[in-house]
Amino acid sequence: MKRGFGSDNHSGVNSEIMKAIAEANVEHALAYGDDEWCARTEALFREHFGPQAKVYFVFNGTGANVLNIDAMCRSHEAVVCADTAHINIDECGAPQRVVGCRLLTVDTLDGKLTPDLVRTRLHGFGFEHHSQPKAISISQPTELGTLYTLQEINALSDLAHSHNMYLHMDGARLANAAVALGCSFKEMTVDLGVDCLSFGGTKNGMLMGESVVLLNPVLDVDMKYRRKQMTQLCSKMRFIAAQFEAYLSTEVWYRNAKHSNSMAQLLYGELQGVDGVKVMYPVQVNSVFAQLPTEVRHALQQEYFFYDWDEDADVVRWMCSFDTTEEDIFAFVAALMRLL
Amino acid sequence: MKRGFGSDNHSGVNSEIMKAIAEANVEHALAYGDDEWCARTEALFREHFGPQAKVYFVFNGTGANVLNIDAMCRSHEAVVCADTAHINIDECGAPQRVVGCRLLTVDTLDGKLTPDLVRTRLHGFGFEHHSQPKAISISQPTELGTLYTLQEINALSDLAHSHNMYLHMDGARLANAAVALGCSFKEMTVDLGVDCLSFGGTKNGMLMGESVVLLNPVLDVDMKYRRKQMTQLCSKMRFIAAQFEAYLSTEVWYRNAKHSNSMAQLLYGELQGVDGVKVMYPVQVNSVFAQLPTEVRHALQQEYFFYDWDEDADVVRWMCSFDTTEEDIFAFVAALMRLL
Amino acid sequence: MKRGFGSDNHSGVNSEIMKAIAEANVEHALAYGDDEWCARTEALFREHFGPQAKVYFVFNGTGANVLNIDAMCRSHEAVVCADTAHINIDECGAPQRVVGCRLLTVDTLDGKLTPDLVRTRLHGFGFEHHSQPKAISISQPTELGTLYTLQEINALSDLAHSHNMYLHMDGARLANAAVALGCSFKEMTVDLGVDCLSFGGTKNGMLMGESVVLLNPVLDVDMKYRRKQMTQLCSKMRFIAAQFEAYLSTEVWYRNAKHSNSMAQLLYGELQGVDGVKVMYPVQVNSVFAQLPTEVRHALQQEYFFYDWDEDADVVRWMCSFDTTEEDIFAFVAALMRLL
Amino acid sequence: MKRGFGSDNHSGVNSEIMKAIAEANVEHALAYGDDEWCARTEALFREHFGPQAKVYFVFNGTGANVLNIDAMCRSHEAVVCADTAHINIDECGAPQRVVGCRLLTVDTLDGKLTPDLVRTRLHGFGFEHHSQPKAISISQPTELGTLYTLQEINALSDLAHSHNMYLHMDGARLANAAVALGCSFKEMTVDLGVDCLSFGGTKNGMLMGESVVLLNPVLDVDMKYRRKQMTQLCSKMRFIAAQFEAYLSTEVWYRNAKHSNSMAQLLYGELQGVDGVKVMYPVQVNSVFAQLPTEVRHALQQEYFFYDWDEDADVVRWMCSFDTTEEDIFAFVAALMRLL
Repeated sequence: MKRGFGSDNHSGVNSEIMKAIAEANVEHALAYGDDEWCARTEALFREHFGPQAKVYFVFNGTGANVLNIDAMCRSHEAVVCADTAHINIDECGAPQRVVGCRLLTVDTLDGKLTPDLVRTRLHGFGFEHHSQPKAISISQPTELGTLYTLQEINALSDLAHSHNMYLHMDGARLANAAVALGCSFKEMTVDLGVDCLSFGGTKNGMLMGESVVLLNPVLDVDMKYRRKQMTQLCSKMRFIAAQFEAYLSTEVWYRNAKHSNSMAQLLYGELQGVDGVKVMYPVQVNSVFAQLPTEVRHALQQEYFFYDWDEDADVVRWMCSFDTTEEDIFAFVAALMRLL
Repeated sequence: MKRGFGSDNHSGVNSEIMKAIAEANVEHALAYGDDEWCARTEALFREHFGPQAKVYFVFNGTGANVLNIDAMCRSHEAVVCADTAHINIDECGAPQRVVGCRLLTVDTLDGKLTPDLVRTRLHGFGFEHHSQPKAISISQPTELGTLYTLQEINALSDLAHSHNMYLHMDGARLANAAVALGCSFKEMTVDLGVDCLSFGGTKNGMLMGESVVLLNPVLDVDMKYRRKQMTQLCSKMRFIAAQFEAYLSTEVWYRNAKHSNSMAQLLYGELQGVDGVKVMYPVQVNSVFAQLPTEVRHALQQEYFFYDWDEDADVVRWMCSFDTTEEDIFAFVAALMRLL
Repeated sequence: MKRGFGSDNHSGVNSEIMKAIAEANVEHALAYGDDEWCARTEALFREHFGPQAKVYFVFNGTGANVLNIDAMCRSHEAVVCADTAHINIDECGAPQRVVGCRLLTVDTLDGKLTPDLVRTRLHGFGFEHHSQPKAISISQPTELGTLYTLQEINALSDLAHSHNMYLHMDGARLANAAVALGCSFKEMTVDLGVDCLSFGGTKNGMLMGESVVLLNPVLDVDMKYRRKQMTQLCSKMRFIAAQFEAYLSTEVWYRNAKHSNSMAQLLYGELQGVDGVKVMYPVQVNSVFAQLPTEVRHALQQEYFFYDWDEDADVVRWMCSFDTTEEDIFAFVAALMRLL
Repeated sequence: MKRGFGSDNHSGVNSEIMKAIAEANVEHALAYGDDEWCARTEALFREHFGPQAKVYFVFNGTGANVLNIDAMCRSHEAVVCADTAHINIDECGAPQRVVGCRLLTVDTLDGKLTPDLVRTRLHGFGFEHHSQPKAISISQPTELGTLYTLQEINALSDLAHSHNMYLHMDGARLANAAVALGCSFKEMTVDLGVDCLSFGGTKNGMLMGESVVLLNPVLDVDMKYRRKQMTQLCSKMRFIAAQFEAYLSTEVWYRNAKHSNSMAQLLYGELQGVDGVKVMYPVQVNSVFAQLPTEVRHALQQEYFFYDWDEDADVVRWMCSFDTTEEDIFAFVAALMRLL
């Protein structure tokens, strides 16, 4: 397939990650997580997220998000999230089916919750006819490529905790956020009161591997059974752990995210001043959301695969990957300019 | 970890499989199955299972089994299976949680259902107080390492179909069965009326990859949504497809299964005439179930990791892998003899 | 408890209904619906809703709504509804837990969906990451006491059917709507393309009894098992059927609804010109939603029990019942005037 | 319908119960349990079951059983029960669908679990591939009409508690057991360590009403939401409470159960010495299970409705009710004798 801007999971696997997989392919290892790779990588997560952090490896982002929701909520409880949240829009109802709970969605301008927006959903405590709000879930970066500041995250965790609720962060692209904000994973999560995290690797150069990171130890109840029962227990788990080990112990996570972020900036820069293209949100990580004329959109999609974000509004999403090159961007912008 | 006989997923990845993964790591590919590897591998499944076969790749065996059950049954329906079936014992209740249905279990001598055993559960049709029997599920080979003959499978599919039910086969180790019976996958499944299949690769040399193979097209309804909603949709799916492509297009599946079967025969042979060790079931594929004195069992487990199968009865399970060597077996038997 | 305006299920049981219960208490009858009362009442439903109508008696409104959703949707599908819908707000997440599906909510001005509002949720057909819209659910009257015209219902059923979707009507207070619109149940449902209906009796003088009425026969699949499995099968069902028989065969449904509607009009009339009280929505059935000063609201709630509808906006709900009297209203308004 | 022995829910409603319903039909009362009848009746349950007892009224036995299981178990946990248990056989899979958990069934001779039988299912603690045993459920009396002695119940609660498990009692017919054993409800439950109870009224003369009685306060978590979300919250709850008030505060429960038990004894006595009829289990409460020739069975079912219990074995169930008369029994036995 032609290289493009369809998704950061259209790219393949970073060479260091592939090497780590190959190196893990030695002899026998216990299955289901009782191996040395998992042990080492769990320790590495504690280095990155603090000594209380407990990681559960899973297959994919849906698994990570659903297992986190399951850790926070029983079925009669509810999660407040942006209407654009991946857990709301893009899991085909997995939280509803697997956990059985409700999502209380809020319209936002830029994919970001605020305490005021969340408060509009904090009603009905103690009233048995209403699902009980028990968690707030935010995506960092958001599905619209925007970022919460550290202060904003902190305000949401304060709000959550003041109502005996938890704060979950969907960090499928957390590395991109950390690079953009110039902070560590710990500074962006546990230090701000985030209770649990979906921490992704697949979109930033791994082959396949996501994780649930519990930062608040009270959530660590029955998790191994819950993961297994929802079909997310991997047998040869060393091959997920080995990827995360390479990802976190070297600069892979940082270098890849820095690169894809900078490619988005390059793309954004090239679009400046282009008549007919309107960038919709601040470009803070590795995505650019743009509005362009319908016919141009269609014509460009003949050459390049990318997703419509809002078909009615002619808004599309362009994602940069760890392997996006400057040439990719120049060629893409040239094609766009030709069509405009 | 010391090489041993704990499980066929304690071994790593076959070199041809690893090579296929590396070769798939080129440029961009559409995610979620719309790539050329998936297209080619789906065609390969049709070669092996007939033109009507439809494959859905999933992450693990639990996912494959639950998705198959979901294809056959609604929550008020039930699956007849052996009490030793993996779907009953070893999924931590995933079918119950994800599908919401009942399993109607039958005690067996050797892990195998028979029409007579199944009939004991075929009651209450039309009676709303009872879950409605809708499927029979068999494992080939069984969890006890025994095999159904082709005639036996056919008899069960006839029984199922005569009651408007489906026949599912859990084929996590189907390659071992095919080698042992000297037949093709097709001859052991679709030709006998099997409606759907969990077809595994992980236990026979793949890194990670299982599949749902629908052989009866009437089951192919809404499957892509169901797979996604139960958290089993892989993003960089080419890396699962590429493994299956190598597995099926070369002799990997055959060679690996033949080897692990023959290693089990070697182990079985070495145990013949050993006082104090009783082999419990016919050794037909790559496992040996043996009864040995409690203290010997414990002492041997100090040296080697393997699972108790029935702790009360001192029965253990020893599995051979694609990479088990004759030396592994001789060393293991020597250790056992020393302890007896 | 002091008589008041808290809810139409605060009132007791209509005398004709109580008499029917007593009269059904003769000798033995088959349980679970196979009795003569059920047979006669099912026929009565066919008189009211057409010969294809199929009724399933259930215990309560939650049961009726969830069973209807279950008839229309599998877990990966979704129901479009107003954000104020009872199925969204007031079932504590029962649809999510029991069916596992999503609700796609729409903000409305008056509790009523329109085709344009619904269309904002009709996206992502065929895209496996999104729950698939499969039903529209409206409440008639709405939870805000407003009514759909027959034309409006028809437009929604046309929209639903043009997308291969179903139209569900939550008719917990359908009698009040029928009286207000001067039409029969049939004219308001099956004649307009409504596919299934939650038809209530409890709020209009019955002791306990609701029903699922399937108007589109394609939905009538496995319903008896689904009802049982979701815990809604009544054993001595004759006592529910007997209530509905009295309710439908005499003028009970009509007389009670006409009365509670007229009492709401009386209350509404009395509030006209009262400074400090603002009626929020057209008063079309048996409820009045009013905004009043916070302190008055609190003081009045010391004397009378009624629900805040929107605490932040000082909006409350007053419901009239089949047994509300003119004196009740005059006393209530007098108390209100005294506090203002 | 002809009076007979089909089920104790084929009979109607005891006159005292009907009177209580009528007397509760006065004025307005808060819905959903916040009324004076519920308050009084909850106090009455504390008199009968001890001061820590907490009752939740529900509609039916399925609701009571599922809510109790939900209180004890999360979905990855399991309930050990007899294979003949109502929760296993007669709920159409409601526990699996609503709670998502497994039932670990044990074959029994007479419907009764013993510690030794239960222990065969107490394996795999801490092993994430296995559902974790968390509760034992017994029926008192059993579905076969047999009774646990107080000592036997105590032994099971000891076993449960020694494994950090709970003991549930399905007491749909608890009154019959209490009469037969000559003990109070408290002596048969909380005094023996029973943690929670499904306490029924419908089969012993009530119109409709069952209850969850939590005897161990640690189980009383989020119950009101769980009841609502599983569709078991009644609006005009006073009418369930009023029935239980009459049932428990007068001798209704005792008198009715004593009568139906004695009618079963009469039936049993009449069958003594009748050639061709074999009574299968001790007749301890209000049921008789009998084996009779196939053709006689069929012929008798032409005259009387009753259930086959084991069609293959020609075993049927005859239930006596609170309103069964001696004449009913003489007529029935005469019909049987005529056919033999």
